[in-house]
Amino acid sequence: MYRLHIANKNYSSWSLRPWVLMRHLEIPFEEQLTAFDTGSSWRSFRAFSPTGKVPCLEDGERGIWESLAIVEYLAERHAGVWPRDEAARAWARSASAEMHAGFGALRDECPMNCAARVRLSSPSAALEQELERLDELWQEGLSRFGGPFLAGADFSAVDAFFAPVAFRVRSFGLELGEASRVYVDTLLDLPAMRQWDADAVAEPWREPGHEDDLLARGTLLEDRRENG
Amino acid sequence: MYRLHIANKNYSSWSLRPWVLMRHLEIPFEEQLTAFDTGSSWRSFRAFSPTGKVPCLEDGERGIWESLAIVEYLAERHAGVWPRDEAARAWARSASAEMHAGFGALRDECPMNCAARVRLSSPSAALEQELERLDELWQEGLSRFGGPFLAGADFSAVDAFFAPVAFRVRSFGLELGEASRVYVDTLLDLPAMRQWDADAVAEPWREPGHEDDLLARGTLLEDRRENG
Ligand SMILES: N[C@@H](CCC(=O)N[C@@H](CS)C(=O)NCC(=O)O)C(=O)O
Ligand SMILES: N[C@@H](CCC(=O)N[C@@H](CS)C(=O)NCC(=O)O)C(=O)O
Repeated sequence: MYRLHIANKNYSSWSLRPWVLMRHLEIPFEEQLTAFDTGSSWRSFRAFSPTGKVPCLEDGERGIWESLAIVEYLAERHAGVWPRDEAARAWARSASAEMHAGFGALRDECPMNCAARVRLSSPSAALEQELERLDELWQEGLSRFGGPFLAGADFSAVDAFFAPVAFRVRSFGLELGEASRVYVDTLLDLPAMRQWDADAVAEPWREPGHEDDLLARGTLLEDRRENG
Repeated sequence: MYRLHIANKNYSSWSLRPWVLMRHLEIPFEEQLTAFDTGSSWRSFRAFSPTGKVPCLEDGERGIWESLAIVEYLAERHAGVWPRDEAARAWARSASAEMHAGFGALRDECPMNCAARVRLSSPSAALEQELERLDELWQEGLSRFGGPFLAGADFSAVDAFFAPVAFRVRSFGLELGEASRVYVDTLLDLPAMRQWDADAVAEPWREPGHEDDLLARGTLLEDRRENG
């Protein structure tokens, strides 16, 4: 059985990607959550991950790190990871790789925090530009492949790659076009996403670095955590 | 026939990745070079690339952007893109994805400039840490899969992903362990790498942004370009 190493569900956007994909596709795995340390988690995470980062997938003796590499590893072994249609699959891979390397302002300025609702203080020009690109990209996929998911009728790895963005849009009330708003709701409504969200809200930890980073970005409007 | 959009060979590290892979594997393509504009090239590159960045591969009507997605697109169509051995392939994909999203200090502080030799002024702690990780990663691949390439006897996509690092190591005299040094020489000696390097040195353009960025990093010791 696979073992998937992740960190706190409330914060760890990269962990969410393979987790939600495997849950949605019903690929069995054992979840191994290691909570973030205060400050850097490099030392703890190095015990199982060569980069000192999560996620990391164990398949017997084999360790696979980096979310996109985990996805390709699963794609060789399970149906449904990427769309079957060739054009949709090529598009999905481009969009996923764009997310893997890009959207830096969105990741910095709108840190994932499932439980929180925040009013952003001062979105940068870079963030505005990335949101425009995000909207364009999503609308292209949704209209070209017919929806309701980015590359067609079924949830696939490209949706998993943008799943953390759905939580960010909700937390920060980010403005997107109509088609993208509907898509965000579709993601948030998936059973696997609801499960992750519920687990996040119920977590006992608060890591000061992640909390401070969030509060530096804007005004906290709501915090759904039970440990408040 | 494929068309591969790239930018200046002297500067464009991302362009080099699919270019050197396709050349080495003898996958035929037409090269379309669009020189960087002064400042941002977004406007010119948007004519063919949805992110306004290079590289971008055209296959008939289809456009594939992001170097890692281009590699996976080619892997579905041509032998040799990834190693045949399952363990080597999984490792190669993890290492490539790590490069795709990471090594930010190396990319910022040691910009690719094939023609230049530079003495770095003040390498950051982040850069030192990344060089340690790079060395560790390379040595792991080389020893585990037997070399002389990262994932075994044959050059594959993971070597293409680290090809720009070979030029950086040479330009900035970056210090690495013995196995990594030998590997850098192996890369630099490949016919496709020599061709790219020769083309870079012969280019007529100098883009002020890239030139200033380099000079801000250290002392220029040598510039092999013919347009000096
Ligand atoms: N490119 C990596 C990114 C992984 C990453 O940055 N993970 C974060 C958590 S979401 C991490 O482990 N950070 C280590 C730390 O905070 O010390 C991937 O795709 O897996
Ligand atoms: N993650 C992208 C990165 C592409 C990238 O950043 N390309 C640079 C050139 S090496 C670019 O086009 N920059 C646009 C500019 O300088 O305006 C990929 O893997 O293809």
